[in-house]
Parts: sequence; C-alpha cells; structure tokens
Amino acid sequence: MRGIKLVAIFRVKKERIEEAREVFEALIEPTRKEKGCIEYELFQDMQDPASFVFIEEWATAEDLENHRKSGHLTSAREIMNSFTVEKISSTYKLIK
Amino acid sequence: MRGIKLVAIFRVKKERIEEAREVFEALIEPTRKEKGCIEYELFQDMQDPASFVFIEEWATAEDLENHRKSGHLTSAREIMNSFTVEKISSTYKLIK
Repeated sequence: MRGIKLVAIFRVKKERIEEAREVFEALIEPTRKEKGCIEYELFQDMQDPASFVFIEEWATAEDLENHRKSGHLTSAREIMNSFTVEKISSTYKLIK
Repeated sequence: MRGIKLVAIFRVKKERIEEAREVFEALIEPTRKEKGCIEYELFQDMQDPASFVFIEEWATAEDLENHRKSGHLTSAREIMNSFTVEKISSTYKLIK
C-alpha cells in the first residue's frame, strides 16, 4: 500500500537562492533516516531557480507528524520562513 | 541520470470532481506507454478533493514535448480547461 504523498513548493527570495538550497539540502540526510520516510527528494525549478519542490512519501500520518516535529526541521523552520516568499504544500493520496 | 520531473497541480470545479478524476485517470495508461515516460502518477489532495496532482518524470525534454503533443492529451485538453479552476505546473531538476 502506498503512503502519504507530500508536495511542497517553495518560492524563495532571489537574493537568497544559494542559502535556501543549502538549508533544504541539509534536511535530506537526517530526514531519510526517519521512521516511515519512503521518499524525500529535492528539486529545483528549471525555469525559475528561486523555486524548489520537495516531493515526499510517508508510510503513515503519524510518521509525517513526527517528521514535522523533528529537531532538524524545527530548527530550520525559522530560517526557512525568513527566505520563503511563497509556500504551496499539501498531502495527497495515490489514485493511480 | 534522473530525468525531468514535472509537478502539475489542478484545482477543479467542486461540482465536476468525479468527471475530472475520470478524465485524468484516462490519461494514465496511454501516457505510461509513451517513450521516455519514467513516472506518471495521479494523486488527490487529502484535504481538498477538488485538488489533484500529477507527478511525472520524463527521460528527456523531447519525450516530454512529444507527450504534450500526444493525441490523448491534446484531445483531453479542452475538457480539462473547462473544469480546471487553477493550474500550477512546472518542470524540475533533481538536486538530491
């Protein structure tokens, strides 16, 4: 059975693209070690380098909730808020 | 080497959710047979059933371009435009 898909698009301040990329990248290793983390990948928009997307899949809602409370994400949140202009994020269930 | 990721979020008219779902689902089988189609999955938003996302991966830009011109997508475009309220779509390159 497939898990919970999460798509999170971040548009960041143009002058802080590199910094944002580093902060996002730093989340990847610790997150992939978390319980129930099926997929956690970071992409950069090919037309707009200030736009990034995390595509994630979590085994259960509880695993995703634990991720949201994890130390590495919590400690990165403040700086992420400081450079993020727009965030479009939601969770999805597979249809096919 | 990873391909070109495409994330396309569709928010559809509330009264046409089922119709939209059927139209989107009908694209899946023919699309997965196309050259260079690495991934082509349809998901429904867990909070807002009127929101769907296609998460796709294409081996090359040419394969994606051919998909955009494919018969099944071209013929579905008019009806998709008729029930789509908002579309957020872009192509991405993997960072990590």
